[in-house]
Amino acid sequence: MNEKPFSVVLVSGGMDSLVCAGIAVAESRRCAFLHANYGQRTERRELESFHRIADFYNIKERLLVDLNYLKHIGGSALTDTSIEVPPGELERKEIPPTYVPFRNAHFLSIATSWAEVLGAGRIYIGAVEEDSSGYPDCRGSFYRAFEGAIKEGTRPTTQIEIITPLIHMKKAEIVRKGAELGVPFELSWSCYRDGGVACGRCDSCLLRLRGFIEAGMEDPIPYETVDILQKTSEEEGP
Amino acid sequence: MNEKPFSVVLVSGGMDSLVCAGIAVAESRRCAFLHANYGQRTERRELESFHRIADFYNIKERLLVDLNYLKHIGGSALTDTSIEVPPGELERKEIPPTYVPFRNAHFLSIATSWAEVLGAGRIYIGAVEEDSSGYPDCRGSFYRAFEGAIKEGTRPTTQIEIITPLIHMKKAEIVRKGAELGVPFELSWSCYRDGGVACGRCDSCLLRLRGFIEAGMEDPIPYETVDILQKTSEEEGP
Repeated sequence: MNEKPFSVVLVSGGMDSLVCAGIAVAESRRCAFLHANYGQRTERRELESFHRIADFYNIKERLLVDLNYLKHIGGSALTDTSIEVPPGELERKEIPPTYVPFRNAHFLSIATSWAEVLGAGRIYIGAVEEDSSGYPDCRGSFYRAFEGAIKEGTRPTTQIEIITPLIHMKKAEIVRKGAELGVPFELSWSCYRDGGVACGRCDSCLLRLRGFIEAGMEDPIPYETVDILQKTSEEEGP
Repeated sequence: MNEKPFSVVLVSGGMDSLVCAGIAVAESRRCAFLHANYGQRTERRELESFHRIADFYNIKERLLVDLNYLKHIGGSALTDTSIEVPPGELERKEIPPTYVPFRNAHFLSIATSWAEVLGAGRIYIGAVEEDSSGYPDCRGSFYRAFEGAIKEGTRPTTQIEIITPLIHMKKAEIVRKGAELGVPFELSWSCYRDGGVACGRCDSCLLRLRGFIEAGMEDPIPYETVDILQKTSEEEGP
């Protein structure tokens, strides 16, 4: 098939999902954007980013889903406010408390159901394996395994591929790719805390900031502080 | 490990899930029951059955989740009232319109997140492959593939098996197994239509009724009609 695909794109509103969306839009004839609220701290802010990004790409088909049961299940600092979001630590070895157990499987299940009904052949998700917080559901092997489950669990005529364009990218490469595609970085929200401006201290902020610094670019969004990263940058260089 | 497992059990409230629950309770040291509403026609009736079954087994840990987004995604006669539930047809070759696209993946994702937080090592689901309506997400191969996704997408220390005790059973064997375990058949609800009593005509009723007839037992729940099955039974014998 030489025709460009019809794709369902998971868009959280963060930087990775924004760049992933930019790639999906470039590679597809038609895109449908999917966003999940799951009782995460930054739900409202992420949803706002989702809509602004979808507006930017002129996406008509949008699905918003509410997985508030993930908050009831708990077990994560992102959905349980009694568990503190730790300060960012880029050399962390264990899985951090911000891991939401098996979260991405929920997102993929919804994307698959929607893709099967719409007749879309691809699901794009901006998961990053190496230069990330080490969540198990962000590993390439998980996506390959899940693709196997899709093949076995949908109609025989349904063909759905999971595309993870960022999976092996470093954050700096993601920033460069986004710049090359002209993605609207200023519309995205990556911070794990729900402040007026990004905190500049959580894992997600640190990873993003390091990406921009290493790419030699300036992040257009404001931060409460960028001290740690500037220090790291001075010490280690790009 | 010789200790009996701690298990999460998916309980819709239908006969298969009831017998599966009976097996899980017998095999586990502790069970947590999970039920999903997903905008299906018989939501209210199924939830009532779920609680009555959980009460019967004295289950304290219950999780109710609301997947009403499956109704928005649509594509199934079970969630979209503009698509008619067809009369039952036991020799059907294609996948019937009651198929809810990739539904069981949603159930398994939730069960996995919950099991990972609780520390449960097993997920029981009463899927039936052969003597069923032919849904792709009821095939054994789907469960094996999904188990692979769980292995890759959860913490390295998490070990979760999916147990499908009914997968290769005929309906009559399920009825016999339930009788052997003393499950409360009268508390379960299988009908796809939302009437005061089960319709006796949809796929789900026909499969259940044929199971009881072939097992030489009487189904304790009332039906609007059982004409078709009694006819089939007279023609074909048990």
